Amino acid sequence: MKKVAVIMGSDSDFPIVSKAVAELKAYGVPYECRVMSAHRTPSAACDFASSAKDEGFGVIICAAGMAAHLAGVFAGHTTLPVIGIPMKSAALDGMDALLATVMMPPGVPVATVGIDGAKNAALLAIQILAVSDEGLAKKLADEKQKMAQSVFAKDKALQEKLEML
Amino acid sequence: MKKVAVIMGSDSDFPIVSKAVAELKAYGVPYECRVMSAHRTPSAACDFASSAKDEGFGVIICAAGMAAHLAGVFAGHTTLPVIGIPMKSAALDGMDALLATVMMPPGVPVATVGIDGAKNAALLAIQILAVSDEGLAKKLADEKQKMAQSVFAKDKALQEKLEML
Amino acid sequence: MKKVAVIMGSDSDFPIVSKAVAELKAYGVPYECRVMSAHRTPSAACDFASSAKDEGFGVIICAAGMAAHLAGVFAGHTTLPVIGIPMKSAALDGMDALLATVMMPPGVPVATVGIDGAKNAALLAIQILAVSDEGLAKKLADEKQKMAQSVFAKDKALQEKLEML
Amino acid sequence: MKKVAVIMGSDSDFPIVSKAVAELKAYGVPYECRVMSAHRTPSAACDFASSAKDEGFGVIICAAGMAAHLAGVFAGHTTLPVIGIPMKSAALDGMDALLATVMMPPGVPVATVGIDGAKNAALLAIQILAVSDEGLAKKLADEKQKMAQSVFAKDKALQEKLEML
Amino acid sequence: MKKVAVIMGSDSDFPIVSKAVAELKAYGVPYECRVMSAHRTPSAACDFASSAKDEGFGVIICAAGMAAHLAGVFAGHTTLPVIGIPMKSAALDGMDALLATVMMPPGVPVATVGIDGAKNAALLAIQILAVSDEGLAKKLADEKQKMAQSVFAKDKALQEKLEML
Amino acid sequence: MKKVAVIMGSDSDFPIVSKAVAELKAYGVPYECRVMSAHRTPSAACDFASSAKDEGFGVIICAAGMAAHLAGVFAGHTTLPVIGIPMKSAALDGMDALLATVMMPPGVPVATVGIDGAKNAALLAIQILAVSDEGLAKKLADEKQKMAQSVFAKDKALQEKLEML
Amino acid sequence: MKKVAVIMGSDSDFPIVSKAVAELKAYGVPYECRVMSAHRTPSAACDFASSAKDEGFGVIICAAGMAAHLAGVFAGHTTLPVIGIPMKSAALDGMDALLATVMMPPGVPVATVGIDGAKNAALLAIQILAVSDEGLAKKLADEKQKMAQSVFAKDKALQEKLEML
Amino acid sequence: MKKVAVIMGSDSDFPIVSKAVAELKAYGVPYECRVMSAHRTPSAACDFASSAKDEGFGVIICAAGMAAHLAGVFAGHTTLPVIGIPMKSAALDGMDALLATVMMPPGVPVATVGIDGAKNAALLAIQILAVSDEGLAKKLADEKQKMAQSVFAKDKALQEKLEML
Repeated sequence: MKKVAVIMGSDSDFPIVSKAVAELKAYGVPYECRVMSAHRTPSAACDFASSAKDEGFGVIICAAGMAAHLAGVFAGHTTLPVIGIPMKSAALDGMDALLATVMMPPGVPVATVGIDGAKNAALLAIQILAVSDEGLAKKLADEKQKMAQSVFAKDKALQEKLEML
Repeated sequence: MKKVAVIMGSDSDFPIVSKAVAELKAYGVPYECRVMSAHRTPSAACDFASSAKDEGFGVIICAAGMAAHLAGVFAGHTTLPVIGIPMKSAALDGMDALLATVMMPPGVPVATVGIDGAKNAALLAIQILAVSDEGLAKKLADEKQKMAQSVFAKDKALQEKLEML
Repeated sequence: MKKVAVIMGSDSDFPIVSKAVAELKAYGVPYECRVMSAHRTPSAACDFASSAKDEGFGVIICAAGMAAHLAGVFAGHTTLPVIGIPMKSAALDGMDALLATVMMPPGVPVATVGIDGAKNAALLAIQILAVSDEGLAKKLADEKQKMAQSVFAKDKALQEKLEML
Repeated sequence: MKKVAVIMGSDSDFPIVSKAVAELKAYGVPYECRVMSAHRTPSAACDFASSAKDEGFGVIICAAGMAAHLAGVFAGHTTLPVIGIPMKSAALDGMDALLATVMMPPGVPVATVGIDGAKNAALLAIQILAVSDEGLAKKLADEKQKMAQSVFAKDKALQEKLEML
Repeated sequence: MKKVAVIMGSDSDFPIVSKAVAELKAYGVPYECRVMSAHRTPSAACDFASSAKDEGFGVIICAAGMAAHLAGVFAGHTTLPVIGIPMKSAALDGMDALLATVMMPPGVPVATVGIDGAKNAALLAIQILAVSDEGLAKKLADEKQKMAQSVFAKDKALQEKLEML
Repeated sequence: MKKVAVIMGSDSDFPIVSKAVAELKAYGVPYECRVMSAHRTPSAACDFASSAKDEGFGVIICAAGMAAHLAGVFAGHTTLPVIGIPMKSAALDGMDALLATVMMPPGVPVATVGIDGAKNAALLAIQILAVSDEGLAKKLADEKQKMAQSVFAKDKALQEKLEML
Repeated sequence: MKKVAVIMGSDSDFPIVSKAVAELKAYGVPYECRVMSAHRTPSAACDFASSAKDEGFGVIICAAGMAAHLAGVFAGHTTLPVIGIPMKSAALDGMDALLATVMMPPGVPVATVGIDGAKNAALLAIQILAVSDEGLAKKLADEKQKMAQSVFAKDKALQEKLEML
Repeated sequence: MKKVAVIMGSDSDFPIVSKAVAELKAYGVPYECRVMSAHRTPSAACDFASSAKDEGFGVIICAAGMAAHLAGVFAGHTTLPVIGIPMKSAALDGMDALLATVMMPPGVPVATVGIDGAKNAALLAIQILAVSDEGLAKKLADEKQKMAQSVFAKDKALQEKLEML
């Protein structure tokens, strides 16, 4: 199975990004998790992106905040699907990272998920790998069922709580 | 090869969405292009989404404006990767559609591209299919080269223009 | 009397949504309060919405955050008035939910109240039922009076406080 | 049947507001359409709002732009449901009117529709009246069907157009 | 000397609004401080506004949050200058109140100060009264001097602090 | 009677600012209308502001776009009330000028009107002068009446138009 | 004298960027004007940035729209001052480019000018070179004087125009 | 070596601004750090700006919040490069200061860094001085290397942490 690269612009992003890692682990998808910066280690980032396909990666997830260029830089150097996670930072509530991630010019798409949406980024990566992997697709369908069951259980719990009021 | 579904919420979106269709055609990727509305034909949309995988689709692209729910509704009914194109409409410059498309709750990702980013949505779909299709991956790499050549050509043309000033 | 459905996208919304429940209780309006998700239990939501009128509901209140599709999905499946409460969440201060709730396309209205406006959502539902229920209308008028009296009392208390300074 | 009041803050709003009038006409719902200003004719607005219930109105629609207070002022003087249409004006793309209409304090709801959403305002008014009027409810259900048929027809037309390309 | 009315939409605004009161007191300007709501006690607000000039008021300050209509309602009922203080509330960081206060239609101005700008509202009221009151104008000029001296003192303190580092 | 200064940051603002001039003329209020720039002729602006009171001005109106500092600079150099008109310019729809004008620090208020609100700026200036000028106050009250009559006339015209449909 | 590099992300930016070129020409500052894309020709951009200092450049100006990464990418590869011009594009009025340009992480500054601010970018570059070039500094001071004179002339023309009314 | 002026609008900005001071110190660049206000000590600010070049300054850094005019006022009075730091304050998350700092009119640039970006402001000042100072340029290049090494170290630390999970 192809690997998923999970890149974050700063190790301070790990508390959020770790949710992506946890999701990939839960699905048994091989991954590599790295700290690389579009601005502080640009050459390392470009090199990683350029060789990612040959290194056996199938999807790349990039998490960055502020003027979040990480996903865009990766997308410029690879034809693999690149998923961008805009990270909320000290000012502007993540709007800066969202726009810097999603508004890519024609020819270089970044598949953007919601602000701090690390779990969804991993799920999207898994969905992408599952396009050609029925086993993975089956797991996704099972999890989707469980997610619904969990909501039903919460609904039932609420009914009981309300009745007791 | 798996098909790409291109769904738009209104046929008035076609002038933008047609760029996605053109891109898919250029790459020889099979597609189906439909008008369906999350709000006006919700059952048809749910049915299409639910059976899309079995119908041979690999990726779904949804274009919608305003409180753009189309991609989210599709993502709720399938485990295929769903790409959302936020469409600019009469007010708010596309910000409404962008937020309504990208800010999905954990468990149900939508791969969002930029406002009116139809070409990028198609490219992203092709990148996704190319994860398991080397022929397609090769074409993407070739096109990326051509895109760079085209920028170099424009740069050269600008130099000539500037020299003549 | 027709019932009011109070639907929330996640049980974590209950601390806010409970204000709507309290208001309905105070007016003696029958209600049902449920957890359902546009994205995680879409079929249950569609089924509930489709049959709500036949089940004796008169108004539906939907509370959801982020790309808040819940009210829109309900509005797509019923001709009952649907009231949307945009919920503030971790990023973007509720602006995402507001736009995803209010900017509905022609033909499918959602009666949107302010961010986290659960009490107002309930009052609006009661006002709607009161259009054909004079007893309820009388209660609303009485409460409106009491609300004014409460402001007058606060004004008087402020005068006393200021005099003592 | 109770009447719907359609109030606009300026006669320059009529090109948009007329869509609400047309919708009410099409459903055979009695209405009164007026120009009144929260700021320029405040007493007339307050008087109209205060007596609206006794004058046989069931719902009030208010359309205003900029610091759009019209709906809020009406809501302060009546217990009837008040629907607000935020109008887009020369600056800020309607965001000013949206926030000034929707962010009402607890106790005084305004049922807000999208920017320039005159048709939806009328539909919402009709949905409200239909809560106690089965004939009207039937018409709404029929129109919802027709709306879906119209989307299906556009989808079919698109297929034909695409085949001919 | 004419009085300044300081009106707040809710007594919960007093911690901020009290800064306006303190400023008026410091300048010896007579004032009346009241709780009145554009939406909850609209008639009292309209009555106060309509008779304010005859009651000896020269300027009216209105503080309100969310869909902040208080200043606009007052401005609709008087020809006295009305100063609006947009109050920051739980969501949207005060942007809602700012737009609802400042974007008034032609013919009905509101002199808007910054979000939570209670001190500036009082100063503006004093500046307005000072246009025809040289004693007050003198005090304003003196205070402007003191304000500058205070900045100079802080600058000096910083130099000393930096030298000690 | 004290004069009103009407300052604009660029002569390209005149088409909007001329509405302020027209209003002042209509009320017979003496004024001076000037082009001065906070950034391009800062010394001239500071000098004008510093001496404005002694030159017989009672109120200063400043119109500027983008990072609109003109009103703030004037307010820093005078104790006269300064009214700011945020001008809409090529990007950002006037939001930049609004925030740069209204968000003044404590101690230096700017009385801000809506974006491009030149007429309201003049009316506010007249209201300020009218605090100590009963003749002017009478004119304002008369014009407020006429404004209401004009809305009533438009309302009547609409009724006739609607009847003819 | 060191050269100024003027880089634009797309040749469609030239109508705006040409204002920077014109300014540099007027000051006699040597420049090179190029089309390079952070996303479409990333390697060329990185190479240019990395060798810019050795090639005799003193300042780099980068103009780009949407998720405007160009200036950030350059700043990642050089220690020369990098000036960013956020370009307004089809959606979001330039706010996307502004945030993507200015919100750089600690360690990698971009000197950002206003949206479409090409002339100011050039002036800033000249100011930077003038720090060690008295001749250039003299020219800047002269031009600043001329700019003031031009405003004075416009002010005078306005006075004449107003007198003739 | 020319000095860098670090000006802040209020001494309450020092906790952020001190990061600029620390950076200048670390590079051994001479600086002067002052409290001056565009609105409260405008004459002192203008005087400082006007004579800064003659006093041996090469670059000016201005930090201010809200309607942040400080950098703009300085830029109006000098031809030295002026760097603006928009400071985040109690409301609007720094967006007000950002727009008030960056959107300068043609002819008067402000080199704007990100919200609260004090460290980057200092680095930009150093980059500017380094254009004509090879020693400083060398230090910048060395620091850029160290910054990259620091990211590599964090990446390595993360790998070890992940392996131990």
